[in-house]
Amino acid sequence: MRRSTTADEIKKLILTRDLKPGDPLPTEAELCETLNVSRSSVREAIRTLSTLDIVDVRHGHGTYVGAMSLDPMVQALVFRGVLSPDGTLNALREVVEVRLALDLALAETIVNGAVGEDAAELSALVDEMVDKASRGEVFLEADRAFHTKLFSVTGNRLAVQLVGAFWDVHTAVVPQLGIAMPEDIQHTAEAHGDMLASALRGDVEGYRQAVIEHYRPLQRSISAATA
Amino acid sequence: MRRSTTADEIKKLILTRDLKPGDPLPTEAELCETLNVSRSSVREAIRTLSTLDIVDVRHGHGTYVGAMSLDPMVQALVFRGVLSPDGTLNALREVVEVRLALDLALAETIVNGAVGEDAAELSALVDEMVDKASRGEVFLEADRAFHTKLFSVTGNRLAVQLVGAFWDVHTAVVPQLGIAMPEDIQHTAEAHGDMLASALRGDVEGYRQAVIEHYRPLQRSISAATA
Repeated sequence: MRRSTTADEIKKLILTRDLKPGDPLPTEAELCETLNVSRSSVREAIRTLSTLDIVDVRHGHGTYVGAMSLDPMVQALVFRGVLSPDGTLNALREVVEVRLALDLALAETIVNGAVGEDAAELSALVDEMVDKASRGEVFLEADRAFHTKLFSVTGNRLAVQLVGAFWDVHTAVVPQLGIAMPEDIQHTAEAHGDMLASALRGDVEGYRQAVIEHYRPLQRSISAATA
Repeated sequence: MRRSTTADEIKKLILTRDLKPGDPLPTEAELCETLNVSRSSVREAIRTLSTLDIVDVRHGHGTYVGAMSLDPMVQALVFRGVLSPDGTLNALREVVEVRLALDLALAETIVNGAVGEDAAELSALVDEMVDKASRGEVFLEADRAFHTKLFSVTGNRLAVQLVGAFWDVHTAVVPQLGIAMPEDIQHTAEAHGDMLASALRGDVEGYRQAVIEHYRPLQRSISAATA
């Protein structure tokens, strides 16, 4: 870990002042005085913390405590994928395996969770995906929203962030696969509907089956592109 | 994502020159000339890429292509955990849930994989843990090595990196729980042995059960600390 001491001091200050994501950070001048360091040290530390999404520099507005998202991980993973000796396809295969593992392992929590409360929203997202698929269009936004919404039922913010992060890696890498077959788009869109329907009727095994079906077209594309 | 254009250009250069982790990066002077940017832009970009572990600045030696580890994620997650309104315990509970999910989901791959090849090494790690536990000592290094080694059987580098990253978050947060009970340390150490034994005899169900037992003392500590 390469961190400047000033970055650590700013992190401590966020803690001791009990600042939360979205709260404004003290000004650069105040940080220099409080931490007894130069303006250039403060600037460098802010840059480092901003790269890690620990602070959020809004140009012309000021600096705030950041959302601490997994964006830094996404950047490193996407780039590592591109750089991988086996190419991005292998990186994508790994992401799909981990996503599938999480989806299957959390199936019971999701199916037994309060999906009911979000059913209308999830159902609208399924309709949007099916509708777009029928016109041969892709549905990235709705897809991401569906998966993160579904995972939020687990009450595990880390799992929600991970699924969002993997989804972003996934999306960055997928163009390499070329255009998916129209019937594959349709199949994927409908599998989301099956996942939701199973969750709503409390059918863990049906949910797991729908999850597996949901990844099948993508796994086919990866295999075809590798061959 | 907050990235300077120069950072993007350096990433492109790593790709086009087909540089791999550990390869030296061109000198600062060469980067200035090739990318046609100022020395301060190059320095800022290198700092950003270093924070993301995309480059590795070895002071006095030069700058190399980095390992692209998940360290940036660990930093953000640990800090987010500390900052969380529900405290770090909730962050730890989330990490344990995700670790358990991955362990259970990949059980079949691990048990059916070539654990045999690494059996001696894994067995030595178990012995070390049991030995330390019997003297009331903790065994962090051996524990981390055991889990990453076991996951390497899956051939999924992302899963290996994730398990290592979660383990680091975990270790950073655990001191909050206070000292574990001696019998808990013993129980955890032995559960690793049961995981390995089940994997070696191809017993997926036994492996899953040992994984669940392995997390029980930790889950007890979290519950006790929350209460």
